Order: sequence, then structure tokens, then C-alpha cells
Amino acid sequence: MDAISLSIGDELVLGQTVDTNSAWLSAQLAAVGIGVAAHLTVGDDQSAIEQAIRQAAPRCDILLISGGLGPTEDDLTRQALAAVMGQPLELNEEWLTELENFFALRTRNMPPSNRIQAMIPRGARMIFNTAGTAAGIEATLPIVESVSVSPRPRVPASSSSVRIFVVPGVPKEMKIMFQRDVLPYLRDAAGGAVILSRTLHTFGLGESAIAEKIGDLMRRGHNPSVGTTVSNGVVSLRVNARFKSLREATERLDETVAACRAALGSLIYGQDDQALQQVVGAMLKSSTGASVATAESCTGGLLAKMLTDIPGSSTYFSFGWVTYANRAKEELLGVSPELLQQHGAVSKPVVLAMATGARVRAASTFALSISGIAGPDGGTPAKPVGTVWIALAGPDGAEARTFIFPGDREFIRDRSAKMALTLLRYKLLGEEVPF
Amino acid sequence: MDAISLSIGDELVLGQTVDTNSAWLSAQLAAVGIGVAAHLTVGDDQSAIEQAIRQAAPRCDILLISGGLGPTEDDLTRQALAAVMGQPLELNEEWLTELENFFALRTRNMPPSNRIQAMIPRGARMIFNTAGTAAGIEATLPIVESVSVSPRPRVPASSSSVRIFVVPGVPKEMKIMFQRDVLPYLRDAAGGAVILSRTLHTFGLGESAIAEKIGDLMRRGHNPSVGTTVSNGVVSLRVNARFKSLREATERLDETVAACRAALGSLIYGQDDQALQQVVGAMLKSSTGASVATAESCTGGLLAKMLTDIPGSSTYFSFGWVTYANRAKEELLGVSPELLQQHGAVSKPVVLAMATGARVRAASTFALSISGIAGPDGGTPAKPVGTVWIALAGPDGAEARTFIFPGDREFIRDRSAKMALTLLRYKLLGEEVPF
Repeated sequence: MDAISLSIGDELVLGQTVDTNSAWLSAQLAAVGIGVAAHLTVGDDQSAIEQAIRQAAPRCDILLISGGLGPTEDDLTRQALAAVMGQPLELNEEWLTELENFFALRTRNMPPSNRIQAMIPRGARMIFNTAGTAAGIEATLPIVESVSVSPRPRVPASSSSVRIFVVPGVPKEMKIMFQRDVLPYLRDAAGGAVILSRTLHTFGLGESAIAEKIGDLMRRGHNPSVGTTVSNGVVSLRVNARFKSLREATERLDETVAACRAALGSLIYGQDDQALQQVVGAMLKSSTGASVATAESCTGGLLAKMLTDIPGSSTYFSFGWVTYANRAKEELLGVSPELLQQHGAVSKPVVLAMATGARVRAASTFALSISGIAGPDGGTPAKPVGTVWIALAGPDGAEARTFIFPGDREFIRDRSAKMALTLLRYKLLGEEVPF
Repeated sequence: MDAISLSIGDELVLGQTVDTNSAWLSAQLAAVGIGVAAHLTVGDDQSAIEQAIRQAAPRCDILLISGGLGPTEDDLTRQALAAVMGQPLELNEEWLTELENFFALRTRNMPPSNRIQAMIPRGARMIFNTAGTAAGIEATLPIVESVSVSPRPRVPASSSSVRIFVVPGVPKEMKIMFQRDVLPYLRDAAGGAVILSRTLHTFGLGESAIAEKIGDLMRRGHNPSVGTTVSNGVVSLRVNARFKSLREATERLDETVAACRAALGSLIYGQDDQALQQVVGAMLKSSTGASVATAESCTGGLLAKMLTDIPGSSTYFSFGWVTYANRAKEELLGVSPELLQQHGAVSKPVVLAMATGARVRAASTFALSISGIAGPDGGTPAKPVGTVWIALAGPDGAEARTFIFPGDREFIRDRSAKMALTLLRYKLLGEEVPF
């Protein structure tokens, strides 16, 4: 059973608003086992909407249309649907009464333009709106040959109609209506198939290196499917299991996730909504009394900011220094002027001294320090932009590593802070960093 | 001249990721006078991508495809395009060399799977990627009758081909490639009508308060049009002028922008790509020798991070403290234990002592301090979550203000840091804060 999401709105095709409805609806559909074949977006233009409905209808079993149900002249979804159905718009008395009550309750007269919001195509069913003035519409559109515009319709010959649901474009109204009046029908119609998903996050290796380690699990057609995505340096594996029963989906998902974990080991730092700083924070919390301090140059506070993104981080984080100037490194962390003079601020001896100085002053278990060249200026042939030294001081002494991060200033700062967290994570795991 | 944006990715049709690329691309196109007829999204499925290209091509002059250019098996855009073009994929030696250099620079061997990223359909042109490993593709697809699947193609009979640009799905790479190598072509191709835009940014007042001050300029049908958008607490006015000639568009845009500036005065801190921290940084730079230090509690380094977002910020920023614990406030900034005991960390006397302590220790012109309750826990009836004290110390002494920010932890921390920058901005302007 396949669905298509059709979003209507000039603000969408003009790029003034990001369409979040399609993603939300798709996730809802996936959760009941309905695949989404495509998202389609057109502006507030009746012929464009008609064409989009004609195009989409033969390619799906469920067509979800959002937007274009407002009271103004540029809201044309109901007119377009009526035209495609070959039916006139009719006044729905029940919804008109609701509308009039809505305005009466607010001691306002209903503007005449709102009357259109109670019109639906003849033969369609009105969907109640508990959060706004636009009624939704449910309709069944027969698929006849002349409507099918594709040389390869996706729908098997046995399917002779598409179920259409029209919901408001305002996310809040849309979500309430969808969950109350559309989802129950879809859950029944889907007849059982279940899609379960899990996402596993890694940081440190590139997408292709991760994919190679996963190997055969990523082959096309494998169910559960395994795919990679990259976001801000985090390479994630998305595992999607699609099965008839919840039990089978759960078991097979767990099995594939276990296989991914076996292949990647500690490269996986967390799953689903877990952020790196959250995982590291939880590890610090669970290792009783452990704490970390930060001493940052090029990241300018980003590492401390990440650590304190997490509520309750005061348990393990108390002290941070942003020593952006050499003088600050000397005065606040006790880095010797000779060291700075001899090796430069972006060097192994200096990050080691920063981390050690921070650890002593904070009286913390660990301290992380970062010094690098975030650019765009300041690079040299020996130390190009992107060169970053990171040190970790702990009970067993201090160690430092250097990295060359590609990308712009924001990218380099972000990767530096994440790499610092990663070094601490491996230290807490008691494992060698595998890259 | 019409365009269609086609986004590729399982994560999109599964609803796991919101497609922000289409909106961004559409706004870019609108700015050069190219209308976007539709957005279309399909998953990582070669036949679905082929079908989408076949469907979209006859309906537009420009087809922008984003995503599916990664090195893994589920990245199938280049294969689908080659199939629609009826051409084989060929290795682009130039890009292969770039790729090999990319890996060599990082002293890593190129995984064999990355080689696919240098393959493009025969007859297509490679687009250089300055931010990643996937080459873009530019191709021209002839529109022949058998390809046209629509009963009403949008393209006039005279148009016999569509120009296709394939860019990476990773937003950062996509944007760099689009602006560098695609936009200049489109700007030329669009010819005709000129749309000029300017965006003016404010921080501190709500959207409706800003709209009231702007008044009649925002009425529908006004050209240039003026609309408000809100993003991360920044209320922005978008001014769009659409005229036949560049001269007229420029003049009328300047006129409306001047009217907005007259209505809002110093509430406007910058325009277009200017960030608040950039504007404040430039003001510090231009006031010779001025510098600022930071002392942060609840924002945990975010304010320092924002200040150091800006290249060259070392001119005016050298010292930052993240004093997340009371002990850190005492030891690093000299806040007296009695003050903390008597008033609590989130109080006027404590932020004043933090700012004064930071200013003395950094020997800076100004110091900003922040202490608040970012939540989700820690609120009390007297000091609910969102209560934030901010102080500014300068040559004329120190002053502090309190705010109650709504929203979640991330929101409260972000608004606190921006408000601190705003207090410094008004100080540098020599004006009273108008809210």
C-alpha cells in the first residue's frame, strides 16, 4: 500500500516556508506500514493542483493533500479536487453551523469569505476540524484509463480507486485532524504491515569507510534495509524493518541492529535521538564523581556549550576557559610564554599545557583542550587552515593528537569539539581510538 | 522560465529528515526571477528517480536534482539520470584526480566505493565540488514526445530541451555548489524581470510589535512587498521588489528599505547575511582598541562561541570564562561566597560581580555576564525556568537586567546570548535599550 503526500502553497514553492508536513505525515504513515512513494508540492494555482492530483492519483492508494483550505481567494484545493472529480462544490450544512458557532463563541460575525470553508465536492465526506475553521475532505477517486498519465502506473490492475484525504496546511490543525480522523482509517487499511526504524550514530570515520564495514547488510532489497546518512560529521546508519507483524519487525530489526553493532563496535556512540554530548555526559555521570573541564582556543566556547546543552550537566562540568589570546593561555591556564613562543599556540606542547593547566585549576578528573586554525585566515603551509590539536588530561597523564579538518570555519570548529568529546568517550570506554 | 526541484532520499520519503533544500533552492530561484512550478521528492530507488525525471522534465525549463550522489549503493541519482539520457556512465578523470588528492591530503587511501563519485553520464558536464567528494552534474535532456507523460505539458512547443543540474543533498555542499556554479547560469538564462530582495534583522521585540511599527508598508499588493519572518528570536523584514528594470527595482527597493529603517531605527541591527555577533564585532573593531570578555553560567560558553563565530574576532575577544558551578564563579571571577549564599547564583549582585570580575581579569573594555535558569529543572515560583540575569561592565561601571525567556533550554540559552550581545550593541551605539 503506497501513499503520496501533496502539499499546496505558494509560500512553499517560493521557498519562504519549509514543508515540514510531508515529513511528519510520512513518518506517521511509515509507523503503520504504509510506504510513501513521493512528496509533491505545487503552488496556489488551481490548474497546477488539478494536474498534480491527476498525476499522483494513479500512482498511489492513498493521496494525502495538505493546504489550500483557507478562506481566501488563493485557497483553491477544494475547487481543484472537485474539478478532478467532475463534481460541483456543495455547502456542508453541518460544518456551516460549526463555523457560525465558532465565530459566535468569539462574539464576532463570520466574514462571508469563511463560507467557502464549508464547501466540499459532491460525494465527498466532510472531516471535522477541532482546531480551526477549515473542514477536511475525504473522497474516493476512481482511476480510469484516461486519468492515468504514466506509462508505468504503480498500482496493480486490481486497484481501481484512490482514497484522498485533504487536511489543512497549518501544521497544528493538520496534525490534530490527521491523528483523529485519518490515521485510524489508514491503520485499518494498511492491514498489519509494520515498519520499525532505528538510527545508529558514529563519529570519526567517513561515510564510505562505515559502509565498507557494514558491507552486505546495505545491499539493496535487504529487509531490514540499512542506509547511511551524514549530518554535521555524524555518519548515521538508518535501519528500517518492514514486516507483517510487530513481533517479526521487532525481532528482525533487533537482529540487523545487532549485526551493525557487531561490525562497528564502539564506533557507534548512540542511537535515535542521542547526541554525542549526551552520551559522554551519561558516561561521566555513571563513573561516579568524574568531571571534565574545558580549555578552548579556536572553538571559542563551543565545546563547553555542547557539554552544557545537556540538562544536569552541572554534575560533571563546572569550569571552562576560553583562552582565545596567548595572554589568556598564559594568565588563566599557566601556559609558559616560552612554550607559546617556541611552538606556537597550535602545537602539541601548548594543548598539553592547556589541558593540564585546566585540569589542575578545575580540580577535575579530566580536561579537554583545543587549539587550532579555524580559518579562513591564519593558515601556513606547515599548519594549513583546519589544523587542530586536541589534548585530554586525566588521572593517567595527558595525551594530544592532531587533525586536519576540511571545510569552513563553522565546520572545523564543530568537528574539533566533536572530536574532543570522542577522545574523552574512548578514554571513558578504556579503548584505543580506532582512527 | 519555470523550474522544478527534485529531491532524492529515503530519509525524506520516510519522514526522517525534512527537505530544506527545496525551499532554499526555490528562494534562490525566485530571487533571479525564475518561478518554481513544483517540488518533487522520491526515495533512493532508481526506477522511482527515473520516473520522476521523466515526469518533471517536460514541465520545466530547469530541473534541479539534489541528493543521491553519495558513494554508497543506495545513491542512485547518477545511474537514473544516465538511464533517462540513454547514456552510459563514464569516469571523469579530472574529478577522480581531485578525489584521490582529497584522500591523499588526509593521508588516507580512497575507498574503492568513492570512485563512483567521479562517474557522470556521457555527454554531461562535471560540476566541481569545493566542499565534498561528490561531483555535481550538468546535462541537457531533449524533450521528445514519448518522454512527455502529461496531457498538458507546461513548456511551449518551441522549448525542446530541459537543462538539468544535479547537486549533492548535503545542504552545505549543495549551497556552495549551487551558488558558485549553477546560479550564475540561471541568472543569465532568466533574463527579463528583476526581483531584488533585502532582509532587515531585529532582535528584542516580537513579530506583531515590529509589524505594527511598519504598518501600511506590509499591506498585500504593495510592491516592493514587505513581510515578516521569525527565526531563532530574530524578527526579520523581507522586502521584495519585482520590476522590469534593474534601475527601477533598485530605486524602489532602496525607498522601501529606507521607510522600514525610518520606522524601526536602531531596532534593526543588520541586513541580509549579517549576524548579530558580526555587527557587534564590527562595532567593537571600529571603536579602536575596544574589547569584550565573557563570564557565562547558564549559557555555558554559547556567548563566547557566538563572538568567536566571526573570523578576526581575536582583535576584540581574548578571555572567556564558563563558570558553571558556584565554586568556579568564586575561584575564577572572585564572586564572594556570601553574595552567592545570600542572593543565589541567578541574581543581580552575582551577575554584576561576574561581569566586573571578568573585566578586571581580562583587562578588557567591556565584559558581559549571564546567569539564569535554562531548565528544564531548577525553576522556583520566584525564579521560574527562563529567568536570566545579564550584566554589562564597562568603563562607566556595570549594570544588570533581568529577563524571563519562554521556551525550552536551547531557546532560553540562545535568547540569553543574543540579548547580551544586544545590550552591548546599544551601549556601543550610546543609546538606551528601547525594550
